[in-house]
Amino acid sequence: METAIDAKAMITTHDDIAPYMVEQRGRFIGQTSLVVLPKTTQEVSDVVKLCAEYNIGIVPQGGHTGLVSGGIPFPGDNAIVLSTSRLNKIRAIDPANNTMIVEAGCILQTIQEHAAKHDRLFPLSLGAEGSCQIGGNIATNAGGINVIRYGNTRQLILGLEVVTPTGEIWDGLRALQKDNTGYDLKQLYIGSEGTLGIITAAVLQLFPKPKEQQTAILALRDLDTSLPLLNLAQAMLGDALTSFELLPWIGIDFAQKHGQGVIDPIEGQYDWYILMEASVAINHSNLKDHFDNYLETAFEKGWIKDGVLAQNKTQSDCFWLLRENITLCQKAEGGSIKHDISVPVSSVPAFIKMANEAVQKLIPGIRPHPFGHLGDGNIHYNLSQPINMNKQDYLDRWEEVNRVVHDIVHSFNGSISAEHGIGRVKRDENQHYKSPIEIQLMKSIKTTLDPKGIMNPGKLIPVS
Amino acid sequence: METAIDAKAMITTHDDIAPYMVEQRGRFIGQTSLVVLPKTTQEVSDVVKLCAEYNIGIVPQGGHTGLVSGGIPFPGDNAIVLSTSRLNKIRAIDPANNTMIVEAGCILQTIQEHAAKHDRLFPLSLGAEGSCQIGGNIATNAGGINVIRYGNTRQLILGLEVVTPTGEIWDGLRALQKDNTGYDLKQLYIGSEGTLGIITAAVLQLFPKPKEQQTAILALRDLDTSLPLLNLAQAMLGDALTSFELLPWIGIDFAQKHGQGVIDPIEGQYDWYILMEASVAINHSNLKDHFDNYLETAFEKGWIKDGVLAQNKTQSDCFWLLRENITLCQKAEGGSIKHDISVPVSSVPAFIKMANEAVQKLIPGIRPHPFGHLGDGNIHYNLSQPINMNKQDYLDRWEEVNRVVHDIVHSFNGSISAEHGIGRVKRDENQHYKSPIEIQLMKSIKTTLDPKGIMNPGKLIPVS
Repeated sequence: METAIDAKAMITTHDDIAPYMVEQRGRFIGQTSLVVLPKTTQEVSDVVKLCAEYNIGIVPQGGHTGLVSGGIPFPGDNAIVLSTSRLNKIRAIDPANNTMIVEAGCILQTIQEHAAKHDRLFPLSLGAEGSCQIGGNIATNAGGINVIRYGNTRQLILGLEVVTPTGEIWDGLRALQKDNTGYDLKQLYIGSEGTLGIITAAVLQLFPKPKEQQTAILALRDLDTSLPLLNLAQAMLGDALTSFELLPWIGIDFAQKHGQGVIDPIEGQYDWYILMEASVAINHSNLKDHFDNYLETAFEKGWIKDGVLAQNKTQSDCFWLLRENITLCQKAEGGSIKHDISVPVSSVPAFIKMANEAVQKLIPGIRPHPFGHLGDGNIHYNLSQPINMNKQDYLDRWEEVNRVVHDIVHSFNGSISAEHGIGRVKRDENQHYKSPIEIQLMKSIKTTLDPKGIMNPGKLIPVS
Repeated sequence: METAIDAKAMITTHDDIAPYMVEQRGRFIGQTSLVVLPKTTQEVSDVVKLCAEYNIGIVPQGGHTGLVSGGIPFPGDNAIVLSTSRLNKIRAIDPANNTMIVEAGCILQTIQEHAAKHDRLFPLSLGAEGSCQIGGNIATNAGGINVIRYGNTRQLILGLEVVTPTGEIWDGLRALQKDNTGYDLKQLYIGSEGTLGIITAAVLQLFPKPKEQQTAILALRDLDTSLPLLNLAQAMLGDALTSFELLPWIGIDFAQKHGQGVIDPIEGQYDWYILMEASVAINHSNLKDHFDNYLETAFEKGWIKDGVLAQNKTQSDCFWLLRENITLCQKAEGGSIKHDISVPVSSVPAFIKMANEAVQKLIPGIRPHPFGHLGDGNIHYNLSQPINMNKQDYLDRWEEVNRVVHDIVHSFNGSISAEHGIGRVKRDENQHYKSPIEIQLMKSIKTTLDPKGIMNPGKLIPVS
């Protein structure tokens, strides 16, 4: 390996390797004897060539913020970790083309800030943005809170540079809006979770920077009114709508009990809330008027019972802090069995009702805590344990609960992983629901592009 | 074949086959002894299974409006034509989910109209929309005039149903905004020009229907001001900007001379013009004020010399008629050597200047006629023949001119087919510019998914 990469860029001692093996939410701990940290695409290529020669697996790792154990080698995988952390240059920005070329190890927030300096927006935004790396975002097709307006990571990528499993470098860094010259190879790598090659750099799509934002929290009459409310927002705010998040009372309750500085801006208690944001990239818009009209109409129709429009940035930050704590504060209430599902937007209320009923039948006293990106049909359908149940007893039923919830998702032609990916954690569950032909197509692509099976072995799609 | 499909759905006589063999702009005439017109996905599957058994090639054909001879079998291909014309049901629309499920043979305009009836927009729009079929649009990843706001066809597709080269049916008709459960197979079929399988149905993304539009034609000070003008539009109109088209004087001149009912709304003569449109999906917007401010600012900065804002729908239709005739009226001026290129938006003026100089050096008196989607960096770089040259002598230099222009495109890391695809016409030219690793990746995908090579043989990527 020393021939491929500087000895300083290799981590070989158990203690130094340990942080790369432990995940934020991982139910597994990784195992490897080597972490390499290449600094250039050429070094990545050299490392891969060596591994290919000796049939050594490679697990690419970015900011190590993934939630499905996709970034660690499992015992028996005979794999090294290739960290993209030092591959962290912003190579170029072209504001007139609304593009930026970055290396895989760039932190998402660094990219957002660099774009902002040039009066541009890179709209990908998610909880881990302070530490996740763009390479990982691309490899997992990350979602986040702005998808309703700007799409998933996939929609934000114009070009890629990839090191293939044989160590060849594919330079697909084209900064073009239109390019119909063959199969769109980058689409294969986006969302492939490192199983087809290593993304080393990307051309990102930038947008005009928002000049005005409006943020509100609304108390719903009931879950069903969320859909006409969303429809009305699309009709009255048009493209300005950038977030439409569903919050349940239980989440607000947990956040207030356990979160730091969390304030519920709405008096009283309602079953369901919407946190929504609209933004426009121009000055002197009349967004505020439109938003006021929207809220007025929603009140008149009886779809919302109360609502607060943020008066300034501090207040809107406060709303988002509440939202963030809804993610964070479940831990304090014991075991939480999690799902990251999507269904057609029009089916979200029906899905939630059906799933709530099913899990309550399965485990009486279970506390459903569905929240998230209603505007994208993506609900983090998390389930807190019954109050007096033993935590481990509860968590032992993880797979059983998953199956019940995912069966319902499947009946809506939905997805059992909307934005977190498959990794190792959901691999077998995914096999269960995909059609044989889809599994077969995925396998044939995997074996064609990575015939030795060295790229992130065992993740996403098992190849026998 | 009668076992697979009704005899009435087969065309076998030379005269009846002929219309399927002659293309709008084709320099080639197709050859086959059979055109089949299946009415269901199952029938498509049955036909493909038969062809697979007997190693017969299949050329899928939609509305037959393609420009690169991708929809006809060539002599020696031993291929039938599978027309999707009768596979033309709109299967479902879900306005609350902003989606619609359509079969491949639906005419684009029919789809637009059906969406409009439900107060939704399907934004794909292009010259051939009255006859092109959505299956062909998807297979070629069609572009058109709204890409700057809504993206190419690829961005408008949530799910696909595909018949594979072995005749299996892959049901990927998921109507989800987010789905990270493995390789995004639909992306492979989008833009694959029928070489990997036959698209039989799709889930389309709909949008709120625009409620207000503003359309203007502007006379530029010079080509260079097009970029700051675009940048200003993005800053002052934000997401509302939906079209930004470049028109050269020569195009307006041809359109006025040869077009039906064409009016140039601007007095005098300028080298370059912009046709731009902005639209918003909400009522009571102040789009008109913003547009007025934008035009005022552009005048003050000296970037535009004159400009007309359409006062009503009739006038804006008039502007678009002019734009359309710029495409249509080149024919009347003799031979036209065509290119469909893209470069980064920021490089468009530099590209045009460099290419103009090069072709004028090659063929003195040649008349460059670059027009199109400046906002996407996509220019139809067409070249009308010198006035007194023999047409055939001129057209005989097609490939030579292509090479000169494409070399310049390549130097900008651009694309030699921005929106029309590769088909047969650009196949070899594409091989010339792609890197060996990209060609190799494309070939490996082709041979894996279509091992017998029966799907649209000879198109896009030759496999030996």
